[in-house]
Amino acid sequence: MELNKSDIICFGELLLRLSPPGHQLIRQAKTYEANYGGAEANVAASLACLGHKSRFVSRLPTNAIGLAAKSQLAAYGVDTDYIISGGERVGTYFLETGTMHRNSSVIYDRAFSGMATIEKGMINWEDIFQHSQWFHWSGITAGLSATAAEVCMEAIATAKKMGIVVSCDLNYRSKLWQYGKSPASIMPELVSMSDLVLGGKDDARIMLGVEFGKTDDYADTPVRIKEHFPDVKWVATSLRKSYSASHNSIAGVLSDGDKVYRSMVYDMPVMVDRVGGGDAFMAGLIHGMLTYSENYQYIIDFAAAASCLKHTIPGDINLAGLQEIEQLCKGHHDAGRIAR
Amino acid sequence: MELNKSDIICFGELLLRLSPPGHQLIRQAKTYEANYGGAEANVAASLACLGHKSRFVSRLPTNAIGLAAKSQLAAYGVDTDYIISGGERVGTYFLETGTMHRNSSVIYDRAFSGMATIEKGMINWEDIFQHSQWFHWSGITAGLSATAAEVCMEAIATAKKMGIVVSCDLNYRSKLWQYGKSPASIMPELVSMSDLVLGGKDDARIMLGVEFGKTDDYADTPVRIKEHFPDVKWVATSLRKSYSASHNSIAGVLSDGDKVYRSMVYDMPVMVDRVGGGDAFMAGLIHGMLTYSENYQYIIDFAAAASCLKHTIPGDINLAGLQEIEQLCKGHHDAGRIAR
Amino acid sequence: MELNKSDIICFGELLLRLSPPGHQLIRQAKTYEANYGGAEANVAASLACLGHKSRFVSRLPTNAIGLAAKSQLAAYGVDTDYIISGGERVGTYFLETGTMHRNSSVIYDRAFSGMATIEKGMINWEDIFQHSQWFHWSGITAGLSATAAEVCMEAIATAKKMGIVVSCDLNYRSKLWQYGKSPASIMPELVSMSDLVLGGKDDARIMLGVEFGKTDDYADTPVRIKEHFPDVKWVATSLRKSYSASHNSIAGVLSDGDKVYRSMVYDMPVMVDRVGGGDAFMAGLIHGMLTYSENYQYIIDFAAAASCLKHTIPGDINLAGLQEIEQLCKGHHDAGRIAR
Amino acid sequence: MELNKSDIICFGELLLRLSPPGHQLIRQAKTYEANYGGAEANVAASLACLGHKSRFVSRLPTNAIGLAAKSQLAAYGVDTDYIISGGERVGTYFLETGTMHRNSSVIYDRAFSGMATIEKGMINWEDIFQHSQWFHWSGITAGLSATAAEVCMEAIATAKKMGIVVSCDLNYRSKLWQYGKSPASIMPELVSMSDLVLGGKDDARIMLGVEFGKTDDYADTPVRIKEHFPDVKWVATSLRKSYSASHNSIAGVLSDGDKVYRSMVYDMPVMVDRVGGGDAFMAGLIHGMLTYSENYQYIIDFAAAASCLKHTIPGDINLAGLQEIEQLCKGHHDAGRIAR
Amino acid sequence: MELNKSDIICFGELLLRLSPPGHQLIRQAKTYEANYGGAEANVAASLACLGHKSRFVSRLPTNAIGLAAKSQLAAYGVDTDYIISGGERVGTYFLETGTMHRNSSVIYDRAFSGMATIEKGMINWEDIFQHSQWFHWSGITAGLSATAAEVCMEAIATAKKMGIVVSCDLNYRSKLWQYGKSPASIMPELVSMSDLVLGGKDDARIMLGVEFGKTDDYADTPVRIKEHFPDVKWVATSLRKSYSASHNSIAGVLSDGDKVYRSMVYDMPVMVDRVGGGDAFMAGLIHGMLTYSENYQYIIDFAAAASCLKHTIPGDINLAGLQEIEQLCKGHHDAGRIAR
Amino acid sequence: MELNKSDIICFGELLLRLSPPGHQLIRQAKTYEANYGGAEANVAASLACLGHKSRFVSRLPTNAIGLAAKSQLAAYGVDTDYIISGGERVGTYFLETGTMHRNSSVIYDRAFSGMATIEKGMINWEDIFQHSQWFHWSGITAGLSATAAEVCMEAIATAKKMGIVVSCDLNYRSKLWQYGKSPASIMPELVSMSDLVLGGKDDARIMLGVEFGKTDDYADTPVRIKEHFPDVKWVATSLRKSYSASHNSIAGVLSDGDKVYRSMVYDMPVMVDRVGGGDAFMAGLIHGMLTYSENYQYIIDFAAAASCLKHTIPGDINLAGLQEIEQLCKGHHDAGRIAR
Repeated sequence: MELNKSDIICFGELLLRLSPPGHQLIRQAKTYEANYGGAEANVAASLACLGHKSRFVSRLPTNAIGLAAKSQLAAYGVDTDYIISGGERVGTYFLETGTMHRNSSVIYDRAFSGMATIEKGMINWEDIFQHSQWFHWSGITAGLSATAAEVCMEAIATAKKMGIVVSCDLNYRSKLWQYGKSPASIMPELVSMSDLVLGGKDDARIMLGVEFGKTDDYADTPVRIKEHFPDVKWVATSLRKSYSASHNSIAGVLSDGDKVYRSMVYDMPVMVDRVGGGDAFMAGLIHGMLTYSENYQYIIDFAAAASCLKHTIPGDINLAGLQEIEQLCKGHHDAGRIAR
Repeated sequence: MELNKSDIICFGELLLRLSPPGHQLIRQAKTYEANYGGAEANVAASLACLGHKSRFVSRLPTNAIGLAAKSQLAAYGVDTDYIISGGERVGTYFLETGTMHRNSSVIYDRAFSGMATIEKGMINWEDIFQHSQWFHWSGITAGLSATAAEVCMEAIATAKKMGIVVSCDLNYRSKLWQYGKSPASIMPELVSMSDLVLGGKDDARIMLGVEFGKTDDYADTPVRIKEHFPDVKWVATSLRKSYSASHNSIAGVLSDGDKVYRSMVYDMPVMVDRVGGGDAFMAGLIHGMLTYSENYQYIIDFAAAASCLKHTIPGDINLAGLQEIEQLCKGHHDAGRIAR
Repeated sequence: MELNKSDIICFGELLLRLSPPGHQLIRQAKTYEANYGGAEANVAASLACLGHKSRFVSRLPTNAIGLAAKSQLAAYGVDTDYIISGGERVGTYFLETGTMHRNSSVIYDRAFSGMATIEKGMINWEDIFQHSQWFHWSGITAGLSATAAEVCMEAIATAKKMGIVVSCDLNYRSKLWQYGKSPASIMPELVSMSDLVLGGKDDARIMLGVEFGKTDDYADTPVRIKEHFPDVKWVATSLRKSYSASHNSIAGVLSDGDKVYRSMVYDMPVMVDRVGGGDAFMAGLIHGMLTYSENYQYIIDFAAAASCLKHTIPGDINLAGLQEIEQLCKGHHDAGRIAR
Repeated sequence: MELNKSDIICFGELLLRLSPPGHQLIRQAKTYEANYGGAEANVAASLACLGHKSRFVSRLPTNAIGLAAKSQLAAYGVDTDYIISGGERVGTYFLETGTMHRNSSVIYDRAFSGMATIEKGMINWEDIFQHSQWFHWSGITAGLSATAAEVCMEAIATAKKMGIVVSCDLNYRSKLWQYGKSPASIMPELVSMSDLVLGGKDDARIMLGVEFGKTDDYADTPVRIKEHFPDVKWVATSLRKSYSASHNSIAGVLSDGDKVYRSMVYDMPVMVDRVGGGDAFMAGLIHGMLTYSENYQYIIDFAAAASCLKHTIPGDINLAGLQEIEQLCKGHHDAGRIAR
Repeated sequence: MELNKSDIICFGELLLRLSPPGHQLIRQAKTYEANYGGAEANVAASLACLGHKSRFVSRLPTNAIGLAAKSQLAAYGVDTDYIISGGERVGTYFLETGTMHRNSSVIYDRAFSGMATIEKGMINWEDIFQHSQWFHWSGITAGLSATAAEVCMEAIATAKKMGIVVSCDLNYRSKLWQYGKSPASIMPELVSMSDLVLGGKDDARIMLGVEFGKTDDYADTPVRIKEHFPDVKWVATSLRKSYSASHNSIAGVLSDGDKVYRSMVYDMPVMVDRVGGGDAFMAGLIHGMLTYSENYQYIIDFAAAASCLKHTIPGDINLAGLQEIEQLCKGHHDAGRIAR
Repeated sequence: MELNKSDIICFGELLLRLSPPGHQLIRQAKTYEANYGGAEANVAASLACLGHKSRFVSRLPTNAIGLAAKSQLAAYGVDTDYIISGGERVGTYFLETGTMHRNSSVIYDRAFSGMATIEKGMINWEDIFQHSQWFHWSGITAGLSATAAEVCMEAIATAKKMGIVVSCDLNYRSKLWQYGKSPASIMPELVSMSDLVLGGKDDARIMLGVEFGKTDDYADTPVRIKEHFPDVKWVATSLRKSYSASHNSIAGVLSDGDKVYRSMVYDMPVMVDRVGGGDAFMAGLIHGMLTYSENYQYIIDFAAAASCLKHTIPGDINLAGLQEIEQLCKGHHDAGRIAR
């Protein structure tokens, strides 16, 4: 496969994230830290930080919040020219960051946003895909509304027709999918047209109807999904162990149908920001596929290392640079030194 | 009129206000200051700070944002026991604070809130009014939704039936009233059942259909409203002059049908927070009616002084104490001294 | 025992806590974070957050600091109507938060406060206890001054006379008890009239004169106290292990005279705020006694879990909700997941 | 003149600005607010906010500070693709914001920056100007170093050759021009090739050798410069009166050789941020020339209104939108109202 | 008079000042800004900033607050070696900064401090004065306690005996003088031994028993005091007009017995921090007496300009430099320019 | 050796350190925390906090940044009277604080500073050393420039001549030594005149040309250096293990030629600030040599404990007090208790 065209297109919602500083509860908060992010936007920004040309496609209202959301993505080097204007509000979520035995908690306030009310025909996909080589979407968008799911299908079908690689992060969110259709009635068709799929055991079971045997563990997920969707070229799972709200470990597993590749396990005892860890993983996979040819072992190593570093960075977006991630996944033995 | 029973009931929406610190624009903001307020809640809190027993009636979701909103009102001494639970979200607005030639601007994000979806029968007004003597509502609530307007009528009718004094702040907001009815088709009936009405010339014209002569100026508004609504006992207008976003003056005028009373004019060249200035005025009026018997000159003086001090206090709520307001409206000549 | 009346009364001092942000030393601090708390106030607020009606009784000056202290308690749902006015100042303490090998340190500045100068007869206990079922006090108040100790006795005696359950947290503080009487000359009489006592080995030895055998360890404390004070129904100890200033573990042990119940041990490797951990434990015990009837194993489990969660929350007060604590003490296996 | 091609190119230095919060002195500062700006970058960002496609050309080191500087410009919509990499450091300045009788003061630390060490041939001007219609530079760049002045000449000459309109802000800074050449030996040749020149009396005297008669006042500056440089099409001056560090007024005057146009005077009694006021004026002029054809009265009105609004916005950059500026320069009578 | 010896000794209390940020009320404050100051310490620090060797003599406890207080003074160049250790607490005050019609307010919490409990013999004045030429004290210290007043007398008497110039700021504070003696019974003797006295009409009347005629205005105060205390060489008054909490003017008047000198009046429409304005004036006077020989007009001009600049600087202490003050009092016409 | 004279002289550069708050990246930072430090200044401040008279000798420009740098040192009790004025700028570095797998990173911006352009003869060493007993320098200064290295030699030679003990921290920094000489051509002569040397294996190899055998580990470094430089009395190494950017351990080893002394190992799992850990160690060694006579075991224990505590304190400087360090190195078993 030749992968040297220029652009990666990511499609999804950009949300305002409001979080109390430090470990304050929402009930205590007198100030909120504002970040903008969203699963697919995080992937776009992470890819831009890795040196790729990435473009984010979405729908935002024309008010100052929408403008601020675009500004942040643009600051990280993402092309925002194809974010269309529309809708009444920017989807918002409140994040209370837990630690130790107290879990983080999220209050979603994203109903009626620009993306939830997007409709087929609003976006000119052929124009967007003209000089592109990769299209990334996620199950979150399909879970927003019936029309948003239709736009996903519209985009994926156009991409396939134009010969563009398609990736999907399943990203099951139980608080979405409130519009009368189950994920299992929507996602399988969309996923079957994708080339690279990222998802865990629960995503596969609930969204794709994949069945697991009694002895299957999390690391068997890619193989089971691949069996179910033979046209999908690569399937990956990020393996997160959650010892507490501040202490996780992360690793990755990738199947190309022939073989299963596993990364090392990174222990993360004092995480700074857990949100976006999966998106950093996804961006690492896409970068890997575009860069390291068919070196699948290195690709899954890179994705896991990218995700690991994200957990040290505040905000949704993995700002770690290429060199930093490569040093980590190559295991350079200068852990914790100050470069001076 | 005897006014010595115990409670003042205020009914309306409690909003999360998010404002960038200092004079930052929303586009620049990395943090937001969070306050909770709303026209009627501000009146309730201001009255509690003046020593009254006030109770706020509203509808809020049960999540942490709703809890935080209640907490702030409770902190200022307002009884929140009759805030009912329900709805999906807390209404929110973003406030960008202007200065000099740059106007402040507000982005409302209050659709689909608990109050917008309130319905008749949800609140037990008879129970609430049992030991009360005053009920305060505003045109904002009637502008939220058809059902919210119905609940206003339900409350006002019950109050009248139970012999409770009713006050109304017209509070025209052009961004509300989106539900298919004009204010002029709703408000006159509600206002005609109120005893004390606060509003300006535009409110009266748009919401009540009051007509003004060519020579009428703002200060004639109370008289014109009174002519139009003879059953309303007292009508007041706050006279704000807006030299710039940071420099206003404030004064008040009150009519009891017989006579028109005007306060002195307070110049406010470097306002700290302009939001809630009208609510502080309204609370001053209610306090005055309950406290200074029929000394209308002092009542309007007190309302204007209360409003003036609000403009020196960050947040929506007038936390100025009774003694401080009385000293100002009595004109004590120690302006700007430090008490030490 | 029937426990369905409405109010829990907590009596003690409310202090202004000033702490430098992050891990700054006082010597470096240009700003202080202000919280209000105190052993008994923390219990009251924690109980309110668990859904109980709690009332805090104290004495505060009428200045803005006193008002701010009351406001914070009221915000958390505690009834502050019986805080009487008086005294010259609000007791204050400065908290420097340590980490790893550097211990936290406290500078008390609480002499001459409203509570230190409280006197018998100032508080109408019969009125306060009228609709109450529980009274909580602690050894801190008895250690403030001779007159404060007398008011403790006055309150406890009234409570006993009125058939109200009494709980006591021994809370030995070596920097108090400066007024010429030893704790051992005051506390035993007060404790003997209490129904539930919380305290550790040193508290019992110094304040109550309880003697321990060579083989007694910390977990034997409740049994030894119970032997000494046979009229006390329940005795509990919180077992804290302090590996460093930022890494502790917490557990609990409870004796009802017949049997000793021990909770699991919670490891807390990166504590956010250690102050108020004991008060959260105490509130958990009271909640448990009022809620879980005689399920003592669950009661001590709940108290330990409540205390554990407190260590993740900034400020003195345990704002953890009922559901959150119950999930933790039931051992739900979703540690560290984000609910979304 | 037809001006409908797409891009405006601005060339200059991008500096890190560090300023103590509020009115703190540098001696007191424990934190600094970081902004990135520079005379020509501010013009580029302001034009992007007005809806133009603007591109900033400069030279920055590849470290994280350089990256952050680029990020901020990109966030405001400026194309940063032609900022070349090189040099050891990002020029920095410390700004202490005065008020009333205390002047603001600046400590420059910009020697040895990427722009100061730029050399001819490093930038491919022909490529950059290919789809452009306007080139903006300022006297600051010519004052950095001999090689920077040579690059200015290289750029201007290429622009003229390619038929692109050239604008110049004289921007005399006494702390620059330390490299052995006087501004008067460099600037006249550069200015004579420019179409639009902005500058004050002192700039004209010191940098261009323009002589003024005894009766000339500031408003005569454009006419005198025009007389001196007949090939320059338009000359403008911003007229700032400085009553104190926090109270200025601003106005503008523009000459097209035939006639002199003066704007109204805007009084600014409580300025938020005075830096960038001139750059906002310059951007207003360029926008005006590109948009309002030959309506010079409106162009100078717009420039002055744009500059006025800049003084209400923190940071170097005028983020005021087109509609906001037009409303101000059209004199809409809703000064200081909150739009709600 | 020859004034070329090395040290200026200031004696008084150093207080912790806690103020809510911006214009927040204490009731709203979640953080406090911490500064250390006090009338005499402010004079010492201001003199150090003007290039003098100044030493502060006081009594502070040995805890971290005392250490922090000393650190701040040392940072501004004051010699703190003669601050003796002792006492239980650092005096504290809470400052709520008003604006416009809302006055600033102060809550003193300074009872029982190290200075309030100082006693004669604790300080070795002969040692301290050995290489000094000037001693400054104020009426605040005499108002703290009977023993503090005795130490004032001890210091002044030693100074006179050793031929050192003595200055006094009367500084009447109505909240002090609670120890059973009136200022009028203490201050006249102390003042009569001083060479330079600063005070206003009320100070003179209440503290010194000076009587004023009906036609006397504030500017006559120095003459009346001088008549009353013929041994005092110079008497000055700072003339503050308080238009509002944020808008004052300041000027000065000085009498040497022969003649009365008046400074220009400085208008201060948007004051940053009003506290310490009088101390800056006092330091300006002392600096003037030590520097400008008998140029009394320039001395009073300098004192007024110093005080004016203080109102632009946050905190108690005038950090304005010598050159900045001299430029202001010489009336340089570059008001509000940025030096760049 | 008799060590009871009064002053310790430290010589080196004082830098402005700018670090984004929390774990933000420079690319994200909107504010920076400003601290002032430098290897030798940190030693001076740490010694002052331990009760010694220390003096810092350096060269700083006269602007407000230089003044602020001096202020901070003075605040911690260091004598700054011999910091001479000169140079164009204060050396600066940007510190991005890593955690877990993300290393901290430093951007140096220290070229052309006052210290880099210092020259022989600028400092009067004989005057400075007159009442001193100890002189401390480090390899950083020798690495700044050829002239700075010459001033090191000038100082060391004068110190030796006057019989003053000399200590050196090798402090190899790969980003320095850019002026055409290798450390190995400069340092051996300077080190051979020093009495106490601190350095690690890499420092010794690169800067001193010391060779290590295959079986040598880090702890053998002092012995190898001592063999190489027989006139050096004591050689020490701090043994840091870096498990991650937030988790290190620290220990120390000291050789007096006869014997090797090792401290215990301190585990530091959640470091607050790693910068200055080596300087705290160095200060601990100097304090130990001056205080604990020849008790080398206690000296190395103290140095390691001092360094350990530094890692809990924000900023460059170890503010831990004598008692706190002694308690830690004596192993008091009250780890993590709050003193109250």
